[in-house]
Amino acid sequence: MNPQLQELKTRLLEVNDLNSANALLSWDQSTYMPSGGAPARGRQMATLARLAHEKFTDPAVGKLLDELRPYAESLPYDSDDASLIRVTRREYERATKIPAEFVARLNEHQAESYQVWTEARPANDFKRVQPYLEKTLDLSRQLANYFTGYEHIADPLIDFSDEGMKVSTLRPLFAELRAQLVPIVQAITAQPAADDACLKQNYPEAQQLAFGQEVIKALGYDFNRGRQDKTHHPFMTKFSLGDVRITTRVKERDLSDALFSTIHEAGHAMYEQGIRMDFEGTPLAGGTSSGVHESQSRTWENLVGRSQDFWMFFYPRIQAAFPEQLTGVSFETFCRAINKVERSLIRTDADEVTYNLHVMIRFDFEIALLEGNLAMRDLPEAWHARYQSDLGLRAPDDRDGVLQDVHWYGGIIGGSFQGYTLGNVISAQFFQSALKAQPGIPTQMRAGHFDALRGWLTENVYQHGSKFTANEIIQRATGRPLSIEPYIRYLRTKYRELYQL
Amino acid sequence: MNPQLQELKTRLLEVNDLNSANALLSWDQSTYMPSGGAPARGRQMATLARLAHEKFTDPAVGKLLDELRPYAESLPYDSDDASLIRVTRREYERATKIPAEFVARLNEHQAESYQVWTEARPANDFKRVQPYLEKTLDLSRQLANYFTGYEHIADPLIDFSDEGMKVSTLRPLFAELRAQLVPIVQAITAQPAADDACLKQNYPEAQQLAFGQEVIKALGYDFNRGRQDKTHHPFMTKFSLGDVRITTRVKERDLSDALFSTIHEAGHAMYEQGIRMDFEGTPLAGGTSSGVHESQSRTWENLVGRSQDFWMFFYPRIQAAFPEQLTGVSFETFCRAINKVERSLIRTDADEVTYNLHVMIRFDFEIALLEGNLAMRDLPEAWHARYQSDLGLRAPDDRDGVLQDVHWYGGIIGGSFQGYTLGNVISAQFFQSALKAQPGIPTQMRAGHFDALRGWLTENVYQHGSKFTANEIIQRATGRPLSIEPYIRYLRTKYRELYQL
Repeated sequence: MNPQLQELKTRLLEVNDLNSANALLSWDQSTYMPSGGAPARGRQMATLARLAHEKFTDPAVGKLLDELRPYAESLPYDSDDASLIRVTRREYERATKIPAEFVARLNEHQAESYQVWTEARPANDFKRVQPYLEKTLDLSRQLANYFTGYEHIADPLIDFSDEGMKVSTLRPLFAELRAQLVPIVQAITAQPAADDACLKQNYPEAQQLAFGQEVIKALGYDFNRGRQDKTHHPFMTKFSLGDVRITTRVKERDLSDALFSTIHEAGHAMYEQGIRMDFEGTPLAGGTSSGVHESQSRTWENLVGRSQDFWMFFYPRIQAAFPEQLTGVSFETFCRAINKVERSLIRTDADEVTYNLHVMIRFDFEIALLEGNLAMRDLPEAWHARYQSDLGLRAPDDRDGVLQDVHWYGGIIGGSFQGYTLGNVISAQFFQSALKAQPGIPTQMRAGHFDALRGWLTENVYQHGSKFTANEIIQRATGRPLSIEPYIRYLRTKYRELYQL
Repeated sequence: MNPQLQELKTRLLEVNDLNSANALLSWDQSTYMPSGGAPARGRQMATLARLAHEKFTDPAVGKLLDELRPYAESLPYDSDDASLIRVTRREYERATKIPAEFVARLNEHQAESYQVWTEARPANDFKRVQPYLEKTLDLSRQLANYFTGYEHIADPLIDFSDEGMKVSTLRPLFAELRAQLVPIVQAITAQPAADDACLKQNYPEAQQLAFGQEVIKALGYDFNRGRQDKTHHPFMTKFSLGDVRITTRVKERDLSDALFSTIHEAGHAMYEQGIRMDFEGTPLAGGTSSGVHESQSRTWENLVGRSQDFWMFFYPRIQAAFPEQLTGVSFETFCRAINKVERSLIRTDADEVTYNLHVMIRFDFEIALLEGNLAMRDLPEAWHARYQSDLGLRAPDDRDGVLQDVHWYGGIIGGSFQGYTLGNVISAQFFQSALKAQPGIPTQMRAGHFDALRGWLTENVYQHGSKFTANEIIQRATGRPLSIEPYIRYLRTKYRELYQL
């Protein structure tokens, strides 16, 4: 092997090991750590993050990347070596363009702002966080400005999580999506609401967990290379390609919460578990963008897990697991219940149809704030007005309005939300191509088999890890650029059938 | 604060954080890690260990220690700063005197030797591991020789775990101990053996775990700063002074295994939890030697946990927890059962009286091998001969003879065993002084209270962490040097009563 490449890989492996160890510290903090461990744990995580950053931004890494440029240019774009060098350079530039002093300042502000938000939200006190949010906006703009040559000030921020996506493509895409979604929502909500009382009975925790694990095992989540634990907020985390864990939470009065969050996180995890093992320890060994990652959690949660095909196999099984609760509930009632659509105020509780409306509101506000076309003091009222126009609802206060999501209060303004809706859109585009290549997928699903779907996704998406950007992998896997058409078609078909629209 | 000391502490904190993170990686490997995580985990642990070693042996640390010498010398010996500098210097010299190349060679050999042992032991094939053991002996000698000026070649190896202990003091101490123990063992084993059938009934796992946790909570193990999980082999581990965890295993056909291992590990943990919080992140924030550490696990396991005083409070409680199994069993029968003494072949199964005979056999062989007074090929037969003379038993094969303990096969020869017996001896010496200072301890124990004992131990031992060596802390806490007298007296009194000797 090229000696510079060898040395680069050795250095990257060290960075990877520090980051993986840090991920375990974080997982443990959420799962098993006793409260007394908190102060030292925070410090330990900061130490490991700092060391990883120091190692990765070492000028020797930049020098190796420069020396490797002719080698990379001599290779095809999609060769492993060229991809490793390209992706590493991108991350190196991102890590080195932002001064360490700025990162420290930003982190400190974010911690403080988050703290204030945890008090301001229950107190319904937007005024209290407003100055923090103004500073966050200012820092977000500064952050963007370390990346010169952008088209739109939000582009560098979007690029952090969705490489290659830009305001100039997302804005029209989302506008079109909204235009198509609103009538669908109107049509569905004009009907009587689905009755989901069957889901709101008492479902003991142990059986819920057992059933969820039976489901994701069938879907293809590999428990030899992962496990599930309980946390306050469900998440997926990875310590290596051989150890990709998920977490969930259980509400005993709600069958759908743990089940669909389990499938959702397993979707994220199957993506990571499907990456080529020889990428282990390199920057290629991770999903490629927040949108593509979310597309996989949503594929398994919604396109599979809320489909009638899936439940043709699993409904008798969940009835057997919960005979008291579900014996008298018809298949149709259950399917409508898990696909209940309703206008609501809270993004995280939203169904798969209205969810995007919540996301796009936030996306538009991020852009407007960054552009200076919306003043921070006007944000709460703008929020209410937009919920009124898009969802026909007005929150009684800011608590369930502009104060509901942590993202801006503990992070930056810009690039925080588009991945959720991109995920929905991309999931349908991949799924459509998978169905075309493997027409037997629905038949398999009705028999509780998911190999054909998972095989297509592994072949076309998972295995590549971060070799390709979202736009590249969409083009390669589906033969065309990102499009909302498959997603809209999926929603129309599904809800036409469910609601006899 | 002295600016050099400030910088030293900052550097030590970084090393501490890396080592603490590594301890969590190891804990997770033993508790929850899925099998697929193993390859990367081994590598991640090696990376963190290497980085910690690099950071600690950085010449800048040596320079700071040199610069701090006049400051340290200006302070009283037992001041915190002087102690921190002294202990850090000792560890620094230990870490820097051994070449990194040698450490790598030793680790590689140990891994290979361990692997061969895992196959040779079930096959009863000492010949197979003999060449590995010969190389281990050779490497152990080389290791000792990095530390010049020793009295005995085993001294530097003993010093790694029991700072300040030497062959010249341990050999006569152990010889005297053996001389006193053998007649006690003979007197006990001349009596009919205790009937421990009551312990060998079916004891469901969940209730065993719950009872063990109730016990250690009463003893003073702080679950806000720790937790208990299950592992193949029980251990204690620490991620910070606020997070000191223990593990156990449960045998459903044996009530005593999980219970006493739980109390044992909680004893180790209470020592760590008792260290002054302002030592957090420094080399002072850990128990001082393997002997003193073991003294605390044995204090709580044996001097407390196998005492009649303790069971006066807990016996009704364990009867209530296991009414079917224990209702008809008398207090006396139970106390004799948990204190059953018998000659046996396996160290790890031995009772508190015969245990030391097992340990001293190994200690003597380590010395003889290092001195060249015993050839490796003669070791198996020497083992059998010594078990015959000391315990009156001969193992049917080497599997339960010289092949039984992992220590030599995965570690070094020298310094591996003395800590176990030192722990027993020291535990009684501390306990005697605690009783003298706090005569109410037995009364408290009979009422399920342990504050007086734990308070004395915290005051005199725990809080100091590694500030003092074993010999120093024994002198300070008990007013005299290490002595076997309290231990022999404890055994004589206890077993005279139990067995009416």
